[in-house]
Amino acid sequence: MAELLSETERNEILPDLGKVGWGGIPERIAIRKVYVFGNFVDAWGWMSMVALHCEKANHHPEWLNVYRTVDVTLTTHDAGGLTDLDIKLAKKMDELAGRFPNVTHQEDLAEPIACLCGVPDAH
Amino acid sequence: MAELLSETERNEILPDLGKVGWGGIPERIAIRKVYVFGNFVDAWGWMSMVALHCEKANHHPEWLNVYRTVDVTLTTHDAGGLTDLDIKLAKKMDELAGRFPNVTHQEDLAEPIACLCGVPDAH
Amino acid sequence: MAELLSETERNEILPDLGKVGWGGIPERIAIRKVYVFGNFVDAWGWMSMVALHCEKANHHPEWLNVYRTVDVTLTTHDAGGLTDLDIKLAKKMDELAGRFPNVTHQEDLAEPIACLCGVPDAH
Amino acid sequence: MAELLSETERNEILPDLGKVGWGGIPERIAIRKVYVFGNFVDAWGWMSMVALHCEKANHHPEWLNVYRTVDVTLTTHDAGGLTDLDIKLAKKMDELAGRFPNVTHQEDLAEPIACLCGVPDAH
Repeated sequence: MAELLSETERNEILPDLGKVGWGGIPERIAIRKVYVFGNFVDAWGWMSMVALHCEKANHHPEWLNVYRTVDVTLTTHDAGGLTDLDIKLAKKMDELAGRFPNVTHQEDLAEPIACLCGVPDAH
Repeated sequence: MAELLSETERNEILPDLGKVGWGGIPERIAIRKVYVFGNFVDAWGWMSMVALHCEKANHHPEWLNVYRTVDVTLTTHDAGGLTDLDIKLAKKMDELAGRFPNVTHQEDLAEPIACLCGVPDAH
Repeated sequence: MAELLSETERNEILPDLGKVGWGGIPERIAIRKVYVFGNFVDAWGWMSMVALHCEKANHHPEWLNVYRTVDVTLTTHDAGGLTDLDIKLAKKMDELAGRFPNVTHQEDLAEPIACLCGVPDAH
Repeated sequence: MAELLSETERNEILPDLGKVGWGGIPERIAIRKVYVFGNFVDAWGWMSMVALHCEKANHHPEWLNVYRTVDVTLTTHDAGGLTDLDIKLAKKMDELAGRFPNVTHQEDLAEPIACLCGVPDAH
Protein backbone atom coordinates (compact mmCIF):
# COMPACT_ATOMS: atom_id res chain seq x y z
CA MET A 1 0.00 0.00 0.00
CA ALA A 2 1.17 3.51 -0.76
CA GLU A 3 2.64 5.31 2.27
CA LEU A 4 1.50 8.70 3.45
CA LEU A 5 3.82 11.56 2.62
CA SER A 6 5.48 12.96 5.70
CA GLU A 7 5.18 16.63 6.61
CA THR A 8 8.75 17.11 5.40
CA GLU A 9 7.90 15.60 2.05
CA ARG A 10 4.75 17.68 1.75
CA ASN A 11 6.78 20.79 2.51
CA GLU A 12 9.08 19.94 -0.36
CA ILE A 13 6.50 18.86 -2.90
CA LEU A 14 3.32 20.89 -2.45
CA PRO A 15 4.54 24.45 -3.02
CA ASP A 16 5.40 23.63 -6.65
CA LEU A 17 1.90 22.24 -7.16
CA GLY A 18 0.50 25.37 -5.53
CA LYS A 19 2.23 27.49 -8.16
CA VAL A 20 0.30 25.77 -10.96
CA GLY A 21 -3.12 26.00 -9.38
CA TRP A 22 -3.44 23.16 -6.88
CA GLY A 23 -4.99 24.06 -3.53
CA GLY A 24 -5.32 22.19 -0.27
CA ILE A 25 -8.27 20.67 1.54
CA PRO A 26 -6.79 20.44 5.04
CA GLU A 27 -9.65 18.57 6.69
CA ARG A 28 -9.27 15.78 4.14
CA ILE A 29 -5.50 15.93 3.59
CA ALA A 30 -6.30 16.23 -0.07
CA ILE A 31 -5.38 18.49 -2.95
CA ARG A 32 -7.70 20.12 -5.43
CA LYS A 33 -7.56 21.87 -8.77
CA VAL A 34 -10.34 23.22 -10.98
CA TYR A 35 -9.45 22.98 -14.66
CA VAL A 36 -11.35 25.15 -17.13
CA PHE A 37 -11.19 23.99 -20.74
CA GLY A 38 -12.40 25.71 -23.88
CA ASN A 39 -15.53 23.59 -24.18
CA PHE A 40 -17.02 20.23 -23.24
CA VAL A 41 -15.23 18.43 -26.07
CA ASP A 42 -11.82 19.48 -24.77
CA ALA A 43 -12.76 18.69 -21.18
CA TRP A 44 -13.93 15.24 -22.22
CA GLY A 45 -10.86 14.56 -24.36
CA TRP A 46 -8.68 15.36 -21.36
CA MET A 47 -10.76 13.19 -19.04
CA SER A 48 -10.53 10.33 -21.53
CA MET A 49 -6.75 10.48 -21.43
CA VAL A 50 -6.62 10.82 -17.66
CA ALA A 51 -8.97 7.84 -17.28
CA LEU A 52 -6.52 5.61 -19.15
CA HIS A 53 -3.71 6.73 -16.90
CA CYS A 54 -5.75 6.21 -13.73
CA GLU A 55 -6.87 2.71 -14.60
CA LYS A 56 -3.27 1.80 -15.44
CA ALA A 57 -1.97 3.23 -12.17
CA ASN A 58 -4.96 1.85 -10.24
CA HIS A 59 -5.45 5.26 -8.63
CA HIS A 60 -8.53 7.30 -9.41
CA PRO A 61 -9.60 10.88 -8.74
CA GLU A 62 -12.76 12.40 -7.41
CA TRP A 63 -13.72 14.62 -10.31
CA LEU A 64 -16.77 16.74 -10.94
CA ASN A 65 -17.41 17.74 -14.53
CA VAL A 66 -19.75 20.62 -15.30
CA TYR A 67 -19.62 21.36 -19.02
CA ARG A 68 -16.10 22.72 -19.61
CA THR A 69 -14.82 22.63 -16.05
CA VAL A 70 -13.40 19.65 -14.17
CA ASP A 71 -13.01 20.02 -10.41
CA VAL A 72 -10.49 17.43 -9.25
CA THR A 73 -9.78 16.24 -5.69
CA LEU A 74 -6.91 13.84 -5.07
CA THR A 75 -6.24 11.80 -1.97
CA THR A 76 -5.42 8.17 -1.29
CA HIS A 77 -8.45 6.72 0.47
CA ASP A 78 -6.69 3.53 1.57
CA ALA A 79 -3.89 5.48 3.18
CA GLY A 80 -6.06 8.21 4.68
CA GLY A 81 -4.21 11.11 3.10
CA LEU A 82 -1.71 12.18 0.47
CA THR A 83 0.71 9.70 -1.02
CA ASP A 84 3.10 9.68 -3.94
CA LEU A 85 0.23 8.31 -6.07
CA ASP A 86 -1.56 11.64 -5.73
CA ILE A 87 1.49 13.68 -6.63
CA LYS A 88 2.14 11.58 -9.72
CA LEU A 89 -1.48 11.83 -10.80
CA ALA A 90 -1.53 15.60 -10.28
CA LYS A 91 1.56 15.98 -12.46
CA LYS A 92 0.15 13.66 -15.14
CA MET A 93 -3.10 15.65 -15.16
CA ASP A 94 -1.17 18.87 -15.64
CA GLU A 95 0.98 17.33 -18.36
CA LEU A 96 -2.09 16.13 -20.28
CA ALA A 97 -3.91 19.42 -19.75
CA GLY A 98 -0.91 21.03 -21.41
CA ARG A 99 -2.11 19.49 -24.68
CA PHE A 100 -4.93 22.06 -24.73
CA PRO A 101 -3.88 25.57 -25.67
CA ASN A 102 -6.72 27.34 -23.91
CA VAL A 103 -6.95 25.53 -20.62
CA THR A 104 -6.95 27.66 -17.47
CA HIS A 105 -7.78 26.99 -13.82
CA GLN A 106 -9.69 28.74 -11.07
CA GLU A 107 -7.47 30.62 -8.66
CA ASP A 108 -9.96 31.13 -5.83
CA LEU A 109 -9.83 27.76 -4.15
CA ALA A 110 -10.55 28.07 -0.48
CA GLU A 111 -7.20 27.23 1.06
CA PRO A 112 -3.68 27.76 -0.20
CA ILE A 113 -2.00 24.41 -0.64
CA ALA A 114 0.72 25.28 1.85
CA CYS A 115 -1.69 24.84 4.74
CA LEU A 116 -1.66 21.12 4.15
CA CYS A 117 1.75 21.22 5.81
CA GLY A 118 0.12 21.77 9.17
CA VAL A 119 -2.04 18.65 9.21
CA PRO A 120 -0.96 15.51 11.04
CA ASP A 121 1.11 12.92 9.20
CA ALA A 122 -1.42 10.17 9.68
CA HIS A 123 -4.72 9.37 11.25
CA MET B 1 -34.65 28.09 -25.11
CA ALA B 2 -36.15 25.20 -23.21
CA GLU B 3 -39.13 26.19 -21.06
CA LEU B 4 -39.40 25.40 -17.38
CA LEU B 5 -41.73 22.56 -16.49
CA SER B 6 -44.82 23.80 -14.68
CA GLU B 7 -45.76 22.41 -11.29
CA THR B 8 -48.50 20.40 -12.99
CA GLU B 9 -45.98 18.86 -15.36
CA ARG B 10 -43.56 18.12 -12.55
CA ASN B 11 -46.38 16.43 -10.63
CA GLU B 12 -46.99 14.17 -13.59
CA ILE B 13 -43.40 13.39 -14.50
CA LEU B 14 -41.27 13.28 -11.37
CA PRO B 15 -42.90 10.48 -9.37
CA ASP B 16 -41.92 7.93 -12.03
CA LEU B 17 -38.32 9.14 -11.86
CA GLY B 18 -38.52 8.90 -8.10
CA LYS B 19 -39.39 5.21 -8.37
CA VAL B 20 -36.13 4.48 -10.18
CA GLY B 21 -33.82 6.34 -7.83
CA TRP B 22 -33.98 10.02 -8.75
CA GLY B 23 -34.24 12.47 -5.86
CA GLY B 24 -34.91 16.17 -5.67
CA ILE B 25 -32.74 19.15 -4.78
CA PRO B 26 -35.47 21.68 -4.00
CA GLU B 27 -33.24 24.69 -3.48
CA ARG B 28 -31.85 24.24 -6.98
CA ILE B 29 -34.97 22.88 -8.72
CA ALA B 30 -32.77 20.03 -9.82
CA ILE B 31 -32.89 16.25 -9.76
CA ARG B 32 -30.16 13.90 -8.65
CA LYS B 33 -29.26 10.23 -8.87
CA VAL B 34 -26.20 8.36 -7.65
CA TYR B 35 -25.37 5.42 -9.92
CA VAL B 36 -23.15 2.67 -8.54
CA PHE B 37 -21.47 0.50 -11.16
CA GLY B 38 -19.48 -2.68 -10.73
CA ASN B 39 -16.12 -0.98 -11.20
CA PHE B 40 -14.45 2.06 -12.76
CA VAL B 41 -14.41 0.49 -16.22
CA ASP B 42 -18.19 0.12 -16.27
CA ALA B 43 -18.70 3.60 -14.82
CA TRP B 44 -16.45 5.06 -17.50
CA GLY B 45 -18.09 3.08 -20.31
CA TRP B 46 -21.44 4.45 -19.25
CA MET B 47 -20.12 8.00 -19.00
CA SER B 48 -18.61 7.68 -22.48
CA MET B 49 -22.00 6.81 -23.91
CA VAL B 50 -23.79 9.52 -21.97
CA ALA B 51 -21.22 12.09 -23.13
CA LEU B 52 -22.06 11.38 -26.77
CA HIS B 53 -25.74 11.85 -26.05
CA CYS B 54 -25.17 15.08 -24.14
CA GLU B 55 -23.03 16.69 -26.79
CA LYS B 56 -25.61 15.75 -29.42
CA ALA B 57 -28.47 17.17 -27.35
CA ASN B 58 -26.36 20.16 -26.28
CA HIS B 59 -27.39 19.55 -22.67
CA HIS B 60 -24.82 18.45 -20.12
CA PRO B 61 -24.98 17.13 -16.57
CA GLU B 62 -23.13 18.01 -13.43
CA TRP B 63 -21.55 14.66 -12.61
CA LEU B 64 -19.09 13.63 -9.97
CA ASN B 65 -17.24 10.39 -10.56
CA VAL B 66 -15.52 8.65 -7.66
CA TYR B 67 -14.23 5.28 -8.84
CA ARG B 68 -17.36 3.23 -9.56
CA THR B 69 -19.98 5.78 -8.53
CA VAL B 70 -21.35 8.65 -10.59
CA ASP B 71 -23.36 11.29 -8.76
CA VAL B 72 -25.48 13.13 -11.31
CA THR B 73 -27.34 16.43 -10.91
CA LEU B 74 -29.56 17.66 -13.72
CA THR B 75 -30.99 21.11 -14.17
CA THR B 76 -31.20 23.57 -17.03
CA HIS B 77 -28.96 26.48 -16.07
CA ASP B 78 -30.24 28.79 -18.80
CA ALA B 79 -33.84 28.29 -17.74
CA GLY B 80 -33.17 28.35 -14.00
CA GLY B 81 -34.79 25.00 -13.25
CA LEU B 82 -36.10 21.77 -14.69
CA THR B 83 -37.03 21.50 -18.34
CA ASP B 84 -37.88 18.70 -20.70
CA LEU B 85 -34.15 18.48 -21.53
CA ASP B 86 -33.47 17.21 -18.01
CA ILE B 87 -36.25 14.64 -18.13
CA LYS B 88 -35.03 13.30 -21.47
CA LEU B 89 -31.44 13.13 -20.22
CA ALA B 90 -32.49 11.34 -17.03
CA LYS B 91 -34.35 8.73 -19.05
CA LYS B 92 -31.46 8.30 -21.46
CA MET B 93 -29.03 7.87 -18.57
CA ASP B 94 -31.26 5.16 -17.08
CA GLU B 95 -31.63 3.45 -20.45
CA LEU B 96 -27.86 3.37 -20.96
CA ALA B 97 -27.23 2.27 -17.37
CA GLY B 98 -29.53 -0.64 -18.17
CA ARG B 99 -26.71 -2.02 -20.34
CA PHE B 100 -24.82 -2.92 -17.18
CA PRO B 101 -26.15 -5.94 -15.31
CA ASN B 102 -24.80 -4.96 -11.90
CA VAL B 103 -25.60 -1.27 -11.70
CA THR B 104 -27.41 -0.05 -8.60
CA HIS B 105 -28.09 3.35 -7.09
CA GLN B 106 -28.01 4.93 -3.67
CA GLU B 107 -31.41 5.20 -2.04
CA ASP B 108 -30.58 7.65 0.74
CA LEU B 109 -30.63 10.91 -1.18
CA ALA B 110 -31.61 13.75 1.03
CA GLU B 111 -35.00 14.69 -0.34
CA PRO B 112 -37.68 12.60 -2.00
CA ILE B 113 -38.18 13.83 -5.53
CA ALA B 114 -41.83 14.65 -4.88
CA CYS B 115 -40.84 17.70 -2.86
CA LEU B 116 -39.79 19.42 -6.06
CA CYS B 117 -43.50 19.90 -6.64
CA GLY B 118 -43.58 22.55 -3.96
CA VAL B 119 -41.01 24.89 -5.45
CA PRO B 120 -42.02 27.90 -7.51
CA ASP B 121 -42.43 27.51 -11.25
CA ALA B 122 -39.78 30.03 -12.08
CA HIS B 123 -37.34 32.47 -10.51
CA MET C 1 -29.47 14.21 -47.63
CA ALA C 2 -26.05 15.68 -48.21
CA GLU C 3 -25.28 16.32 -51.87
CA LEU C 4 -22.18 15.04 -53.63
CA LEU C 5 -19.53 17.63 -54.29
CA SER C 6 -19.18 18.41 -57.97
CA GLU C 7 -15.86 18.03 -59.77
CA THR C 8 -15.54 21.81 -59.71
CA GLU C 9 -16.03 21.89 -55.96
CA ARG C 10 -13.55 19.06 -55.44
CA ASN C 11 -11.02 20.94 -57.55
CA GLU C 12 -11.39 23.91 -55.26
CA ILE C 13 -11.43 22.11 -51.93
CA LEU C 14 -9.23 19.03 -52.08
CA PRO C 15 -5.82 20.53 -52.88
CA ASP C 16 -5.79 22.33 -49.51
CA LEU C 17 -6.54 19.06 -47.74
CA GLY C 18 -3.80 17.41 -49.77
CA LYS C 19 -1.30 19.91 -48.37
CA VAL C 20 -2.00 18.77 -44.81
CA GLY C 21 -1.77 15.05 -45.44
CA TRP C 22 -5.08 13.92 -46.87
CA GLY C 23 -4.89 11.54 -49.83
CA GLY C 24 -7.50 10.21 -52.24
CA ILE C 25 -9.04 6.78 -52.70
CA PRO C 26 -10.34 7.21 -56.25
CA GLU C 27 -12.20 3.92 -56.51
CA ARG C 28 -14.26 4.88 -53.47
CA ILE C 29 -14.45 8.64 -53.99
CA ALA C 30 -13.14 8.93 -50.47
CA ILE C 31 -10.33 10.74 -48.69
CA ARG C 32 -7.84 9.27 -46.25
CA LYS C 33 -5.32 10.44 -43.68
CA VAL C 34 -3.12 8.47 -41.32
CA TYR C 35 -2.52 10.36 -38.07
CA VAL C 36 0.44 9.32 -35.92
CA PHE C 37 0.22 10.43 -32.28
CA GLY C 38 2.84 10.26 -29.56
CA ASN C 39 1.29 7.22 -27.88
CA PHE C 40 -1.99 5.38 -27.42
CA VAL C 41 -3.22 7.80 -24.76
CA ASP C 42 -2.99 10.76 -27.12
CA ALA C 43 -4.54 8.79 -29.99
CA TRP C 44 -7.43 7.81 -27.74
CA GLY C 45 -7.91 11.32 -26.39
CA TRP C 46 -8.18 12.60 -29.93
CA MET C 47 -10.61 9.87 -30.94
CA SER C 48 -12.74 10.65 -27.88
CA MET C 49 -13.08 14.26 -28.98
CA VAL C 50 -13.75 13.33 -32.60
CA ALA C 51 -16.41 10.82 -31.51
CA LEU C 52 -18.38 13.60 -29.79
CA HIS C 53 -18.23 15.72 -32.91
CA CYS C 54 -19.29 12.83 -35.17
CA GLU C 55 -22.27 11.85 -33.10
CA LYS C 56 -23.38 15.48 -32.98
CA ALA C 57 -23.01 15.88 -36.74
CA ASN C 58 -24.46 12.39 -37.36
CA HIS C 59 -21.55 11.65 -39.69
CA HIS C 60 -19.02 8.99 -38.75
CA PRO C 61 -15.63 7.96 -40.11
CA GLU C 62 -14.13 4.61 -40.93
CA TRP C 63 -11.12 4.62 -38.63
CA LEU C 64 -8.55 1.98 -37.87
CA ASN C 65 -6.60 2.43 -34.67
CA VAL C 66 -3.35 0.55 -34.17
CA TYR C 67 -1.70 1.77 -30.97
CA ARG C 68 -0.69 5.37 -31.69
CA THR C 69 -1.84 5.56 -35.32
CA VAL C 70 -5.35 6.26 -36.58
CA ASP C 71 -6.02 5.59 -40.26
CA VAL C 72 -9.10 7.55 -41.25
CA THR C 73 -11.25 7.18 -44.38
CA LEU C 74 -14.06 9.63 -45.01
CA THR C 75 -16.88 9.31 -47.48
CA THR C 76 -20.64 9.73 -47.31
CA HIS C 77 -22.11 6.26 -47.74
CA ASP C 78 -25.65 7.46 -48.33
CA ALA C 79 -24.58 9.81 -51.08
CA GLY C 80 -22.07 7.44 -52.67
CA GLY C 81 -19.11 9.80 -52.51
CA LEU C 82 -17.71 12.98 -51.02
CA THR C 83 -20.01 15.60 -49.57
CA ASP C 84 -19.57 18.71 -47.49
CA LEU C 85 -19.97 16.50 -44.37
CA ASP C 86 -16.65 14.83 -45.15
CA ILE C 87 -14.85 18.11 -45.72
CA LYS C 88 -16.14 19.53 -42.44
CA LEU C 89 -15.17 16.37 -40.56
CA ALA C 90 -11.69 16.35 -42.09
CA LYS C 91 -11.16 19.95 -40.99
CA LYS C 92 -12.51 19.25 -37.50
CA MET C 93 -10.19 16.24 -37.18
CA ASP C 94 -7.21 18.37 -38.15
CA GLU C 95 -8.27 21.12 -35.74
CA LEU C 96 -8.55 18.65 -32.85
CA ALA C 97 -5.30 16.92 -33.80
CA GLY C 98 -3.71 20.35 -33.50
CA ARG C 99 -4.19 20.04 -29.74
CA PHE C 100 -1.37 17.49 -29.68
CA PRO C 101 2.10 18.92 -30.07
CA ASN C 102 3.71 15.78 -31.46
CA VAL C 103 1.15 14.53 -33.94
CA THR C 104 2.38 13.74 -37.45
CA HIS C 105 0.90 11.90 -40.41
CA GLN C 106 2.09 9.38 -42.97
CA GLU C 107 3.02 10.92 -46.30
CA ASP C 108 3.10 7.76 -48.41
CA LEU C 109 -0.59 7.23 -49.05
CA ALA C 110 -1.14 5.53 -52.37
CA GLU C 111 -2.73 8.29 -54.40
CA PRO C 112 -2.35 12.04 -54.29
CA ILE C 113 -5.64 13.60 -53.38
CA ALA C 114 -5.78 15.52 -56.65
CA CYS C 115 -6.65 12.35 -58.56
CA LEU C 116 -10.09 12.39 -56.99
CA CYS C 117 -10.84 15.17 -59.41
CA GLY C 118 -10.96 12.67 -62.27
CA VAL C 119 -13.67 10.47 -60.87
CA PRO C 120 -17.31 10.82 -61.94
CA ASP C 121 -19.56 13.17 -60.04
CA ALA C 122 -21.96 10.43 -59.05
CA HIS C 123 -22.59 6.73 -59.43
CA MET D 1 8.21 -10.63 -23.33
CA ALA D 2 5.10 -12.72 -23.88
CA GLU D 3 5.86 -16.15 -25.37
CA LEU D 4 4.18 -17.48 -28.49
CA LEU D 5 1.54 -20.09 -27.88
CA SER D 6 2.63 -23.50 -29.07
CA GLU D 7 0.58 -25.45 -31.60
CA THR D 8 -0.61 -27.67 -28.77
CA GLU D 9 -1.79 -24.67 -26.80
CA ARG D 10 -3.52 -23.19 -29.83
CA ASN D 11 -5.29 -26.50 -30.38
CA GLU D 12 -6.60 -26.36 -26.86
CA ILE D 13 -7.56 -22.69 -26.73
CA LEU D 14 -8.73 -21.54 -30.15
CA PRO D 15 -11.74 -23.81 -30.78
CA ASP D 16 -13.61 -22.23 -27.87
CA LEU D 17 -12.95 -18.78 -29.30
CA GLY D 18 -14.12 -20.05 -32.67
CA LYS D 19 -17.46 -20.96 -31.16
CA VAL D 20 -18.12 -17.35 -30.12
CA GLY D 21 -17.21 -15.75 -33.42
CA TRP D 22 -13.43 -15.45 -33.55
CA GLY D 23 -11.79 -16.44 -36.84
CA GLY D 24 -8.19 -16.93 -37.87
CA ILE D 25 -5.87 -14.96 -40.10
CA PRO D 26 -3.32 -17.69 -40.84
CA GLU D 27 -0.81 -15.57 -42.74
CA ARG D 28 -0.50 -13.27 -39.73
CA ILE D 29 -0.98 -15.81 -36.94
CA ALA D 30 -3.71 -13.52 -35.68
CA ILE D 31 -7.34 -13.82 -34.64
CA ARG D 32 -10.23 -11.63 -35.73
CA LYS D 33 -13.78 -10.88 -34.72
CA VAL D 34 -16.27 -8.37 -36.11
CA TYR D 35 -18.60 -7.08 -33.41
CA VAL D 36 -21.88 -5.47 -34.48
CA PHE D 37 -23.48 -3.23 -31.87
CA GLY D 38 -26.89 -1.59 -31.87
CA ASN D 39 -25.56 1.84 -32.81
CA PHE D 40 -22.46 4.03 -32.65
CA VAL D 41 -23.06 4.98 -29.02
CA ASP D 42 -22.94 1.36 -27.90
CA ALA D 43 -19.91 0.60 -30.08
CA TRP D 44 -18.12 3.59 -28.60
CA GLY D 45 -19.06 2.72 -25.03
CA TRP D 46 -17.61 -0.74 -25.53
CA MET D 47 -14.43 0.63 -27.11
CA SER D 48 -14.04 3.04 -24.18
CA MET D 49 -14.09 0.16 -21.73
CA VAL D 50 -11.77 -1.98 -23.83
CA ALA D 51 -9.33 0.94 -24.16
CA LEU D 52 -8.98 1.13 -20.36
CA HIS D 53 -8.26 -2.57 -20.19
CA CYS D 54 -5.72 -2.42 -23.03
CA GLU D 55 -3.75 0.46 -21.59
CA LYS D 56 -3.66 -1.32 -18.23
CA ALA D 57 -2.47 -4.59 -19.79
CA ASN D 58 -0.15 -2.72 -22.18
CA HIS D 59 -1.53 -4.75 -25.06
CA HIS D 60 -3.54 -3.06 -27.78
CA PRO D 61 -5.71 -4.28 -30.66
CA GLU D 62 -5.92 -3.34 -34.29
CA TRP D 63 -9.52 -2.23 -34.49
CA LEU D 64 -11.51 -0.68 -37.30
CA ASN D 65 -14.67 1.12 -36.31
CA VAL D 66 -17.31 1.87 -38.94
CA TYR D 67 -20.39 3.28 -37.23
CA ARG D 68 -21.79 0.38 -35.18
CA THR D 69 -19.28 -2.30 -36.19
CA VAL D 70 -15.83 -2.88 -34.73
CA ASP D 71 -13.53 -5.22 -36.65
CA VAL D 72 -10.84 -6.44 -34.26
CA THR D 73 -7.56 -8.17 -35.07
CA LEU D 74 -5.38 -9.46 -32.25
CA THR D 75 -1.76 -10.56 -32.43
CA THR D 76 1.35 -9.81 -30.42
CA HIS D 77 3.61 -7.79 -32.71
CA ASP D 78 6.69 -8.15 -30.52
CA ALA D 79 6.38 -11.91 -30.41
CA GLY D 80 5.40 -12.34 -34.05
CA GLY D 81 2.19 -14.25 -33.38
CA LEU D 82 -0.39 -15.26 -30.81
CA THR D 83 0.41 -15.12 -27.12
CA ASP D 84 -1.56 -15.40 -23.93
CA LEU D 85 -2.01 -11.60 -24.08
CA ASP D 86 -4.22 -12.01 -27.15
CA ILE D 87 -6.32 -14.75 -25.60
CA LYS D 88 -6.89 -12.71 -22.45
CA LEU D 89 -7.83 -9.62 -24.48
CA ALA D 90 -10.22 -11.62 -26.66
CA LYS D 91 -11.98 -12.97 -23.58
CA LYS D 92 -12.12 -9.53 -21.96
CA MET D 93 -13.59 -8.04 -25.16
CA ASP D 94 -16.28 -10.72 -25.20
CA GLU D 95 -17.01 -10.20 -21.51
CA LEU D 96 -17.42 -6.45 -21.98
CA ALA D 97 -19.48 -6.92 -25.16
CA GLY D 98 -21.78 -9.04 -23.01
CA ARG D 99 -22.88 -5.79 -21.34
CA PHE D 100 -24.80 -4.90 -24.49
CA PRO D 101 -28.00 -6.84 -25.03
CA ASN D 102 -28.11 -6.47 -28.80
CA VAL D 103 -24.53 -7.11 -29.82
CA THR D 104 -23.93 -9.67 -32.56
CA HIS D 105 -20.97 -10.58 -34.73
CA GLN D 106 -20.34 -11.39 -38.36
CA GLU D 107 -20.07 -15.10 -39.06
CA ASP D 108 -18.53 -14.97 -42.52
CA LEU D 109 -14.90 -14.32 -41.66
CA ALA D 110 -12.59 -15.77 -44.24
CA GLU D 111 -10.97 -18.62 -42.37
CA PRO D 112 -12.23 -20.77 -39.54
CA ILE D 113 -10.08 -20.22 -36.50
CA ALA D 114 -9.03 -23.87 -36.41
CA CYS D 115 -6.74 -23.33 -39.37
CA LEU D 116 -4.38 -21.35 -37.19
CA CYS D 117 -3.34 -24.69 -35.78
CA GLY D 118 -1.43 -25.45 -38.96
CA VAL D 119 0.87 -22.45 -38.90
CA PRO D 120 4.43 -22.72 -37.56
CA ASP D 121 5.05 -22.12 -33.89
CA ALA D 122 7.39 -19.21 -34.49
CA HIS D 123 9.00 -17.20 -37.25
